[in-house]
Amino acid sequence: MEKEITEIKGGQAMDSLETFKKYRQKMNEKILASGNKQIKRFFTLDSRAYEKGALSTKVKELLGLVASLVLRCNDCITYHIITCVKEGVTPEEFFEAVNIGLIVGGSIVIPHLRKAVEVYETCLKMKKEGKELTL
Amino acid sequence: MEKEITEIKGGQAMDSLETFKKYRQKMNEKILASGNKQIKRFFTLDSRAYEKGALSTKVKELLGLVASLVLRCNDCITYHIITCVKEGVTPEEFFEAVNIGLIVGGSIVIPHLRKAVEVYETCLKMKKEGKELTL
Amino acid sequence: MEKEITEIKGGQAMDSLETFKKYRQKMNEKILASGNKQIKRFFTLDSRAYEKGALSTKVKELLGLVASLVLRCNDCITYHIITCVKEGVTPEEFFEAVNIGLIVGGSIVIPHLRKAVEVYETCLKMKKEGKELTL
Amino acid sequence: MEKEITEIKGGQAMDSLETFKKYRQKMNEKILASGNKQIKRFFTLDSRAYEKGALSTKVKELLGLVASLVLRCNDCITYHIITCVKEGVTPEEFFEAVNIGLIVGGSIVIPHLRKAVEVYETCLKMKKEGKELTL
Amino acid sequence: MEKEITEIKGGQAMDSLETFKKYRQKMNEKILASGNKQIKRFFTLDSRAYEKGALSTKVKELLGLVASLVLRCNDCITYHIITCVKEGVTPEEFFEAVNIGLIVGGSIVIPHLRKAVEVYETCLKMKKEGKELTL
Amino acid sequence: MEKEITEIKGGQAMDSLETFKKYRQKMNEKILASGNKQIKRFFTLDSRAYEKGALSTKVKELLGLVASLVLRCNDCITYHIITCVKEGVTPEEFFEAVNIGLIVGGSIVIPHLRKAVEVYETCLKMKKEGKELTL
Repeated sequence: MEKEITEIKGGQAMDSLETFKKYRQKMNEKILASGNKQIKRFFTLDSRAYEKGALSTKVKELLGLVASLVLRCNDCITYHIITCVKEGVTPEEFFEAVNIGLIVGGSIVIPHLRKAVEVYETCLKMKKEGKELTL
Repeated sequence: MEKEITEIKGGQAMDSLETFKKYRQKMNEKILASGNKQIKRFFTLDSRAYEKGALSTKVKELLGLVASLVLRCNDCITYHIITCVKEGVTPEEFFEAVNIGLIVGGSIVIPHLRKAVEVYETCLKMKKEGKELTL
Repeated sequence: MEKEITEIKGGQAMDSLETFKKYRQKMNEKILASGNKQIKRFFTLDSRAYEKGALSTKVKELLGLVASLVLRCNDCITYHIITCVKEGVTPEEFFEAVNIGLIVGGSIVIPHLRKAVEVYETCLKMKKEGKELTL
Repeated sequence: MEKEITEIKGGQAMDSLETFKKYRQKMNEKILASGNKQIKRFFTLDSRAYEKGALSTKVKELLGLVASLVLRCNDCITYHIITCVKEGVTPEEFFEAVNIGLIVGGSIVIPHLRKAVEVYETCLKMKKEGKELTL
Repeated sequence: MEKEITEIKGGQAMDSLETFKKYRQKMNEKILASGNKQIKRFFTLDSRAYEKGALSTKVKELLGLVASLVLRCNDCITYHIITCVKEGVTPEEFFEAVNIGLIVGGSIVIPHLRKAVEVYETCLKMKKEGKELTL
Repeated sequence: MEKEITEIKGGQAMDSLETFKKYRQKMNEKILASGNKQIKRFFTLDSRAYEKGALSTKVKELLGLVASLVLRCNDCITYHIITCVKEGVTPEEFFEAVNIGLIVGGSIVIPHLRKAVEVYETCLKMKKEGKELTL
């Protein structure tokens, strides 16, 4: 299937990932520097939730992706797709997972499915080109 | 009422419709080419849902519009307004329908109501100028 | 289609409609007696939204039904179905409308679709037996 | 205004609060005993969020109440109303707060507003009778 | 951990599963008999989504469970837990998955988490006693 | 804490507030000029809800902010933060309020929390520079 994936808004999509990454990082620093310890603890719990346990990080990231898809949050979708690609989620696995999000959440999910496919392609391409996939 | 409608961000709004249309088309092609048959079938079911049956396409598109409004999805709102204008929904009908979305969904719907009115005006203008209203 | 409709939890469902009606009425009275004028005005706006205008009450009630279905609120679904039946919505129209709710809102809507079909059948039965359909 | 408040489903509503309290307590114990430390930490963060800080517990509980109202969760609404009554929220304050929830969240909130008013009345009555308001 | 699981509302919870199962089956039959082919196709797509593919049924059911949890639908949660138990999801896996639902969806998810734990325990118990876990 | 707040996307964020303000104003005028009286009344009710009553405007705006945060609407968040800053909400109060939104709504709220912090900083800066904070 990967062959069928042709570039969309090529460098533009990567720029957009880069912009997202920088904004996310800058604002997270501000939030964590706010002095509110409970928000800080929430952020810690949030990243811990996806660490390997009885379930693998790959499965946990797929859980995060589908949850983000049905709740329709593009930034969260982007975040989990980056890790999914790092964890080696294949196109077949990716489309089976987002199909569950589509069935559960309905056609209102479709605009976010478009975004998800764009981000997934961009990340696959970056991985193939040996570019760093981090947030 | 149409007289009261003065142009807002004129050509800009049409450009934005055009951008939406191209992105939507390109990504839909990619999604349908992914090889996942269930997603493909969902897309078919999605378009079938608005075909004329016991209820007219006009009523069905209004149902799709109000559902998209209360679920607060700009892309879905845009999609259904384009067809609503094609189906001849008048300003009075349009505002009565979105008022139901506003009452059911509350003030959180207002930012999407603004978008809906902008898109509706743009589509009305395009129709008057004989421009093609398609997706 | 109506022939295929066999009674489900027969009198029980009607009892449940009756219980809903009484609770709704009693609590609405309390809310309106609370002295908060804005809530009172909201309730007025809410009932006005479904009055005949450029769109018929029937279409408006279908809009309210589908909005309630995708937002997954059983009480609101029940409310709009009662009026839909009074307005003469046929089974074919009913199922086409709820199908749009199902497609837009996804499988998460299904438990509410079950409830909707149960309420619709009960109301149809009450109408046939000449029982009053009010709230 | 309190004078206008007449008993609704009197002892029944209190029984229902008692049932809620027991089920909540029993299940929370099971969840906390599950061995999953992250869920345990989340529960701690959850209760900490409403402790007095720069904002009073009363204001924080009103924030929790309105958030629960617009997200339409009866159990969460019940929980926050119990503490609101303990913190001395007056009927005028209560109805102004829930009115904001109603305006923001729309008519889909109304069934939960009914429940909220029922729970608020029950808790006021319990307080007046010197009954313990705990969870 | 299983040792820590003591019976809650024992036979009662099983009865409630049985009631859910019967109601679900009866209403699904009515919906499928309605003559609306699109709803029928949606139901087919819905069950197909969880069939083994590149992802296992176990992972797919966990995806369905977490999606149902963040969208806060008790019936859908119940449905996916029954299959999760059939697929051998262990308590550790179960709690890691629902923890992701809790972190993503927040404290508003907690009442549904309580229900999920109750259903999970009931299903585990039924499995241990050799009772049939079907829907 | 204010000292820790360094400028982010400085003039850019203010421009974006200005753009939001103009678009909001222009579209609101169009909506109110549409001739639909019910929408007009809804808009009146909406602004009335935050006027001083038994609760202060400050508390009411915090209620509006947290409701907007858990419902994840950036425009509504922006609107309420502008008034919060005018009402003198301190950083400590702001972060305690949004922490409640985060706990109730979960990690899906985080992208909107980032936006909220950006808008809050921009408004604080404008206030310090004696710039007008209006909508």
